[in-house]
Amino acid sequence: MAQLALDGEGSLQRQLYRSLRAAILDGEPGPGRRLPATRVLAGDVGVSRNTVLQAYDQLLAEGYLTARGGSGTYVADTLPDERVAVGQLAGGGRGRDSAAPPRAPRLSLAAQRMLDVVPRGMSWNLRTVPLPYDFRYGAPAFGDLPLETWWRIMGRRARHLSARRLSYSKPGGAPELREALAAYLRRARGVVCSPEQVIVVHGTQQAIDLTIRMLVDPGDRVIVEDPHYPGIAFNAAAAGAELVGVPVDDDGLCVDRLDAAAPARLVCVTPSHQFPTGGVLPLARRLELLRFAEREDALILEDDYDSEFRFDGRPIESLQGLDQNGRVLYAGTASKLLFPSLRLGWLVVPAPLRRPFLHAQALADTGSATLEQLALADFIEDGHLERHVRRSRTRNGARRAALLEALATHFGERAIVSGTDAGLHVMLWLPELAAAHVPALCDEARARGVGVYEVTGFYRQPPKEAALLLGYATLIEKAIGDGVARLAEAYAAVAAR
Amino acid sequence: MAQLALDGEGSLQRQLYRSLRAAILDGEPGPGRRLPATRVLAGDVGVSRNTVLQAYDQLLAEGYLTARGGSGTYVADTLPDERVAVGQLAGGGRGRDSAAPPRAPRLSLAAQRMLDVVPRGMSWNLRTVPLPYDFRYGAPAFGDLPLETWWRIMGRRARHLSARRLSYSKPGGAPELREALAAYLRRARGVVCSPEQVIVVHGTQQAIDLTIRMLVDPGDRVIVEDPHYPGIAFNAAAAGAELVGVPVDDDGLCVDRLDAAAPARLVCVTPSHQFPTGGVLPLARRLELLRFAEREDALILEDDYDSEFRFDGRPIESLQGLDQNGRVLYAGTASKLLFPSLRLGWLVVPAPLRRPFLHAQALADTGSATLEQLALADFIEDGHLERHVRRSRTRNGARRAALLEALATHFGERAIVSGTDAGLHVMLWLPELAAAHVPALCDEARARGVGVYEVTGFYRQPPKEAALLLGYATLIEKAIGDGVARLAEAYAAVAAR
Repeated sequence: MAQLALDGEGSLQRQLYRSLRAAILDGEPGPGRRLPATRVLAGDVGVSRNTVLQAYDQLLAEGYLTARGGSGTYVADTLPDERVAVGQLAGGGRGRDSAAPPRAPRLSLAAQRMLDVVPRGMSWNLRTVPLPYDFRYGAPAFGDLPLETWWRIMGRRARHLSARRLSYSKPGGAPELREALAAYLRRARGVVCSPEQVIVVHGTQQAIDLTIRMLVDPGDRVIVEDPHYPGIAFNAAAAGAELVGVPVDDDGLCVDRLDAAAPARLVCVTPSHQFPTGGVLPLARRLELLRFAEREDALILEDDYDSEFRFDGRPIESLQGLDQNGRVLYAGTASKLLFPSLRLGWLVVPAPLRRPFLHAQALADTGSATLEQLALADFIEDGHLERHVRRSRTRNGARRAALLEALATHFGERAIVSGTDAGLHVMLWLPELAAAHVPALCDEARARGVGVYEVTGFYRQPPKEAALLLGYATLIEKAIGDGVARLAEAYAAVAAR
Repeated sequence: MAQLALDGEGSLQRQLYRSLRAAILDGEPGPGRRLPATRVLAGDVGVSRNTVLQAYDQLLAEGYLTARGGSGTYVADTLPDERVAVGQLAGGGRGRDSAAPPRAPRLSLAAQRMLDVVPRGMSWNLRTVPLPYDFRYGAPAFGDLPLETWWRIMGRRARHLSARRLSYSKPGGAPELREALAAYLRRARGVVCSPEQVIVVHGTQQAIDLTIRMLVDPGDRVIVEDPHYPGIAFNAAAAGAELVGVPVDDDGLCVDRLDAAAPARLVCVTPSHQFPTGGVLPLARRLELLRFAEREDALILEDDYDSEFRFDGRPIESLQGLDQNGRVLYAGTASKLLFPSLRLGWLVVPAPLRRPFLHAQALADTGSATLEQLALADFIEDGHLERHVRRSRTRNGARRAALLEALATHFGERAIVSGTDAGLHVMLWLPELAAAHVPALCDEARARGVGVYEVTGFYRQPPKEAALLLGYATLIEKAIGDGVARLAEAYAAVAAR
């Protein structure tokens, strides 16, 4: 039976019920297969046996499971959804055309490529049992958010939303937000664009998706940094692109390795804070990257996901601001500046791409909810965003200092920390530990209430040394210190094996 | 110079400024081209000459335009966005590599197909000057909406949104909403599914997009009703599908014409209320359509966009509820039940397609804003949705009666009305008028404050008789009567030519 995970919504019994039902509908376990004994499953998932019994009972009552005397609990041969469909048939009485199960629908090549590349069982950011010291990366500093201000602005806009604003709007986004973003991005990130070049999207992933759809054909080569954010590689591979990884060092992408990867249609980079290793691409490399794109007739997707949080040194402006030849598409997100479930991001495209990208958005989903767009426009215009970034940068700087100090205290020479200049996470290299021991280290840490995360999934060529990703934005300094102390205990336990 | 249209945001001067800037950035008019004289443009757009002067002045000040003595106003040879980019170059002093403008980026085949099929200048639902009698279709009855209740629920959810709900969530949607929708769709539409089969999307267009991406390869045949909603044809054509139209009659899709269109991968239908002609597909045709899909190994996309509003006869349940073989994907939308700028819809997929569609959503954009999803779940669970639908159905029934009565009074035998059983619009056939006169009729109506809309854009083979689409949900009965009277005047003026 596949690994079951709870989604954290409602009672444990309800969560387990949902998780089991989803697994059954996915055909794992398949029809007629036996379920684990309640005692076993309770131990595996970490809930009481009574919780499992209740979930099994509900699934039995609904016909997903059948009990066979004393021999256990089995998945039903016919799932209730199929039976109900027959029962509701308005024509009445017409049985299945045959006893065979329905043929599985034929998928497109894009869908097949997607299923090939996305790991089986991938659950997309599934939530697990909360940990007291969770160094989860990717989440912003929820505690720093001026949520009261945000909801007040949302409420004000909601009360004044006209019928016209309740209705459909053009793709690209609300004009107010596009203007506010163009001005903000120029101030904060040196992005040079008119509001018409700004396309409001649902987040970085949609920026990636639209870019690949509009620019990449099956067989085209796409260069990604190695390591990189996996959402980009999955998407490009599903589009049939040939992915080539170019290594990074402490300064980000090794631009001298680009020519060996040519020709390419698209180069996907995180120049302000390489994901996940954290390097900041120096100016000379930026210019070389732009020259490469111009020479190769390639485009560049700049993923600027968290560069507002920069702690040391002079802020480095966006690659887009250096681009004279319309080669750079710039993607940013509200997920790190505000919060991810807002589902707002922005893609700035070169002027000649404006029209195709607007059409593409119209055909993909026609755009984002108007209320949130108008609220974000107000939030930027009224200065709340930049005020929040300044305050949160200070507080994240304190968290980062606590993390670096704790790592120095508890790991000393055994650890090397990289990617500390910017962003909301660091990478922790453990050169005395082989990469193969990282899963055990994560397990030992988890047993001590500490969440740390592997990096191998981000690599095309995983490193031989052990490394962990540690996000720190959601923790207070005390928890950071205590968590690192416990992580050091876990490390000692694994190293001693 | 291309037709300029105002977007209705802010002052007229600001709207015209934006519209002109967008046109210039699109290269129409191109660098060095002369703009119309202010008096001419003022007349064309329907604003004062002073408004045009102010817009020109702002664009002159920003460098988009140049004035040449007494000879008029011209588009600048170099647009300011390009100049600023060079000016900000951190390396300093490096000029353009050449004087030539940047090469236009090469687009993917999908993008090229999209640009081929989407009409040039397509502005996606651009708003125009408000009309007192606007029979615009597609908008719900804004006046009927229980907006106070809706914003109250949004506010309540917002105040209690935990850090977990502010963070990323799994694709598919919030569990609460998927459960509420599965139960609602079963009650209201006879849809048979588990919550796991429900995928919360941004609206019908994303349901179409995901379906075509997962099921259709370039060269595959997709059957659409003729006429049909254009968003589906554009999307399928951009995917490289071969589109085949099958005619409809008063009862919807002519299923006896399906075999001639075979083989097909996907059949896109609106069985509850054919868009736009309004036929309701009878049971025998539904069963024949399902048999066709099973025989041809094809899938069916059921677009159930407004069937909650049904006025005469027994409610007909969804095609999905009749499907025993996992052939039907069911799409619904909050755009007609609540309001379009909420950007929420739902796609119910056969169980074997659950996993690929979840992955596809994760790679497309990872899903919708959590707050709106939780609010909609509460709105359904608390009974507000069905209460609203009942009330709004009564009120839309009254509007429809006023429309039919006014059409009978003012047009009599000269008009045939179809599609009156359900939905929020009707089709008005004018058999004594040639289709070629419809644009003139729309213009004459507009001059009298009446908005009516052409149907030819929905057809692959446009009808020879004149026809108009009339939505009525946003108008009060008095305005409906007055608007039809004025439409009859416009009709008389055109018929007399």
